[in-house]
Amino acid sequence: MNFYKKLAQHHRKLSKLSHLNAICSWDQASMMPEGGNEARSEALAELAVMQHELATAPHLKEWFEKAEAEQLDNEQRVSLKEMKREWQMNTLLPAELVESQSLAGSKCEHAWRSQRHENDWHSFSKNLKEVVELSRHEAQIRAEATGLSRYDALLDIYEPGMTTKQLDRIFNDVKSWLPSLIRQVQEKQATEDVITPVGPFPIEQQKSLSLEVMSKLGFDFNHGRLDVSIHPFCGGVSTDVRITTRYDEADFTSALLGVIHETGHARYEQGLPAKWRGLPAGEARSMGIHESQSLFFEMQLSRSKAFLDILAPLASDAFSRRDDAALTSENLALFNTRVTPDYIRVDADEVTYPAHIILRYEIERDLVEGHIEVEDIPELWDKKMTEYLGLTTRCNHTDGCMQDIHWTDGSFGYFPSYTIGAMYAAQFMAAMRREMNIENLIHARNLSPIFNWLDRHIWKKASTVSTDQLLIEATGEKLNPEYFKQHLIDRYLK
Amino acid sequence: MNFYKKLAQHHRKLSKLSHLNAICSWDQASMMPEGGNEARSEALAELAVMQHELATAPHLKEWFEKAEAEQLDNEQRVSLKEMKREWQMNTLLPAELVESQSLAGSKCEHAWRSQRHENDWHSFSKNLKEVVELSRHEAQIRAEATGLSRYDALLDIYEPGMTTKQLDRIFNDVKSWLPSLIRQVQEKQATEDVITPVGPFPIEQQKSLSLEVMSKLGFDFNHGRLDVSIHPFCGGVSTDVRITTRYDEADFTSALLGVIHETGHARYEQGLPAKWRGLPAGEARSMGIHESQSLFFEMQLSRSKAFLDILAPLASDAFSRRDDAALTSENLALFNTRVTPDYIRVDADEVTYPAHIILRYEIERDLVEGHIEVEDIPELWDKKMTEYLGLTTRCNHTDGCMQDIHWTDGSFGYFPSYTIGAMYAAQFMAAMRREMNIENLIHARNLSPIFNWLDRHIWKKASTVSTDQLLIEATGEKLNPEYFKQHLIDRYLK
Ligand SMILES: [Zn+2]
Ligand SMILES: [Zn+2]
Repeated sequence: MNFYKKLAQHHRKLSKLSHLNAICSWDQASMMPEGGNEARSEALAELAVMQHELATAPHLKEWFEKAEAEQLDNEQRVSLKEMKREWQMNTLLPAELVESQSLAGSKCEHAWRSQRHENDWHSFSKNLKEVVELSRHEAQIRAEATGLSRYDALLDIYEPGMTTKQLDRIFNDVKSWLPSLIRQVQEKQATEDVITPVGPFPIEQQKSLSLEVMSKLGFDFNHGRLDVSIHPFCGGVSTDVRITTRYDEADFTSALLGVIHETGHARYEQGLPAKWRGLPAGEARSMGIHESQSLFFEMQLSRSKAFLDILAPLASDAFSRRDDAALTSENLALFNTRVTPDYIRVDADEVTYPAHIILRYEIERDLVEGHIEVEDIPELWDKKMTEYLGLTTRCNHTDGCMQDIHWTDGSFGYFPSYTIGAMYAAQFMAAMRREMNIENLIHARNLSPIFNWLDRHIWKKASTVSTDQLLIEATGEKLNPEYFKQHLIDRYLK
Repeated sequence: MNFYKKLAQHHRKLSKLSHLNAICSWDQASMMPEGGNEARSEALAELAVMQHELATAPHLKEWFEKAEAEQLDNEQRVSLKEMKREWQMNTLLPAELVESQSLAGSKCEHAWRSQRHENDWHSFSKNLKEVVELSRHEAQIRAEATGLSRYDALLDIYEPGMTTKQLDRIFNDVKSWLPSLIRQVQEKQATEDVITPVGPFPIEQQKSLSLEVMSKLGFDFNHGRLDVSIHPFCGGVSTDVRITTRYDEADFTSALLGVIHETGHARYEQGLPAKWRGLPAGEARSMGIHESQSLFFEMQLSRSKAFLDILAPLASDAFSRRDDAALTSENLALFNTRVTPDYIRVDADEVTYPAHIILRYEIERDLVEGHIEVEDIPELWDKKMTEYLGLTTRCNHTDGCMQDIHWTDGSFGYFPSYTIGAMYAAQFMAAMRREMNIENLIHARNLSPIFNWLDRHIWKKASTVSTDQLLIEATGEKLNPEYFKQHLIDRYLK
């Protein structure tokens, strides 16, 4: 067991460097004054080099070979498998490719920030072509090493085990019912009287409300904090989770639901097993599972009428607006479940969101596989937006194919996690409902059984089982998109 | 110039690791929830190991030898000298000694936190003996390498070039006039009517006032921040200086003057030359020079009547107390210059402070040189406190020799920096006065000439000249304690 132990020690060392990276990156986004950015970026780049050198040290190949020949118990086998997966991910790509990708990504992203506002697809597409070429190269290398198709090899980075075959089947099913469901929901909602809450909602009061809600949702403030950043995220380390939000005086719901979303991510991190700390087996299973936890908190739980019965009085109290009709749970339930097809993914509601993802998935899949080229994107985008959401993006790249940051740095394969996560969340909720009456628990202000279920079935499993296995153990079956469909019908059409 | 360049690159890499260390340490003290401490400490310990390995890499010896043989210009020579000084400091001690010191220091400090409250000298002294033995060992090694005496070799870490011989001369002089000066000041102040400002002073208002005063003192908020920690400090990096304070609702002056003190440290860091960034020649010259900048801001500038004419109305406004007689500049001038011999160094006033330092200097000098033993400390402490300040500490170790944290981790040689710093500050002010009318500038709200003088003579010099040279270039002579004496007489007896 000598080499297994060496490998474990090596990975714990790596995780300490990740710790420094996570805290300094959080600081960069939430605390650092602008003038500190250059030196910080240089320090973080140096750290990244050291992390990469350590993660790809030549002696690891031999260590893995020897460790695999050792007498290991089951848990150690699992841990070794995850260490090896991480090592292979890190060593697969030649350093020159990684560097070219980093440079092309920075260049593309930096230019995108102004090109997007100028609707300048022509200039943007040149940079994007470079990024796509490098990603295809990466995909090719990963495909050869794993025996997967090129796009599947990228998917595997974010959602191990997920394949195009499975996604095509799931997303084609969604496409068969989503457009008509959206229309039905819109028809139903056309007659609803919804009051839009009118600001200002002072930031200090929003902050107090956020902290109170996080507390109700079991966020452990002894192992985490809430701060402010331009782009909200969940960062830090599992023993000290740093979530951020951005307050808007005109609208308290966006920050509040954002905080609840990040609290879902945070509880997953805080709930990871201490026993496996510092080892890949002790980390979150996948991006999709991570997103399932944030969406469980944000969508399944907090947009439910039962939970809004708790949330609404907290909000009225926080803003001293006990007579504001906009802040009743009935109105907030309506307000927070409005469905409107629109251009921007990050602002999309729960029902139209999958359409945005499927569109991106279909385009990036074909792009990586080489079936389409960068030049084809705007037309495809417009065609699919029209087909799925009834909106044209012709000549409007700003609100079309140039709206997201993901492709600028070559994160192809990431988008599906969002909708896969929403589906996992619905499936977890359905399984939980078979064991307990969720509404009764919420009404009794007794959320612990819900969190305990997540802790037992997801958080404490970390990466010690595959995603399929995790789903089966938690819900009795693999990913089944029917639960998500049923959730949308129950919430939006009943 | 090949090896000089390699060494410079190596040191820039080291400074990037210091950057990560500084930010994560700042976070640990000011942001991190308690539950994150264990993992953070482990991550920082791992980083410290990597920093040490890099700083003491075996090939550096050859690099230095080869670089010294290269054709270098004057600036490069200076830079090489400082790199070599740092390298020698780092490589001198065997790793086992450093580790033993770290362990003994942690143990001693940890136990001290409760032992101090329990006045338990007996238990504390056992741990301290271990620490002292290891420091004597360190001093011996440093003495052999440098040709200095053992205590001088420790002094040299914090205040390069400073010697026991010089300190004995300076401090014996101070001892010859300080006790009688303290008595005279007390007699004079006995008849003064001083009003103690009465709280509460809300923390938010104190914070606004602090930020406003920092701004007036030229703190660059694009390269730094103000936050809260239990023990105020100036941390971060020169491009992003993080200062902290601790607010007390009952007394606004302690936090405010603390912030001004740290602002002095911060402006030195922010003013260091960008050209030398990442190289030892571009770092602060010494602990004494660093303290001279904080004390210049806190003592020379902010406790002056002229500056209090600016500060007092800011404070009255901040707390909406325009009629509070305690907040006039006249009263604040009296209140902030009260002299009272007391037990605790960190709470001491400007006049009695040197007595606390001289006492510690004399004890630690003899302790390191082996002239006295740990057992002798309480009696010596009591004797010297009685002699210098007329206070006995017999049987009161809590407020006597157990009050400071410095000795617990073996930082012998550090204490003199405080008083040396106060003397440098007075000497800088005297030199400045020969070039400009400080009071007129302050009255005209024109502080730039003062800061420009410090920037030109101290900040931009960084470590490119020796301390003696820096003093000579700035003031025309080496350290001359007469200016400090004269400053005390002018402020307290006129
Ligand atoms: Zn998320
Ligand atoms: Zn200081």
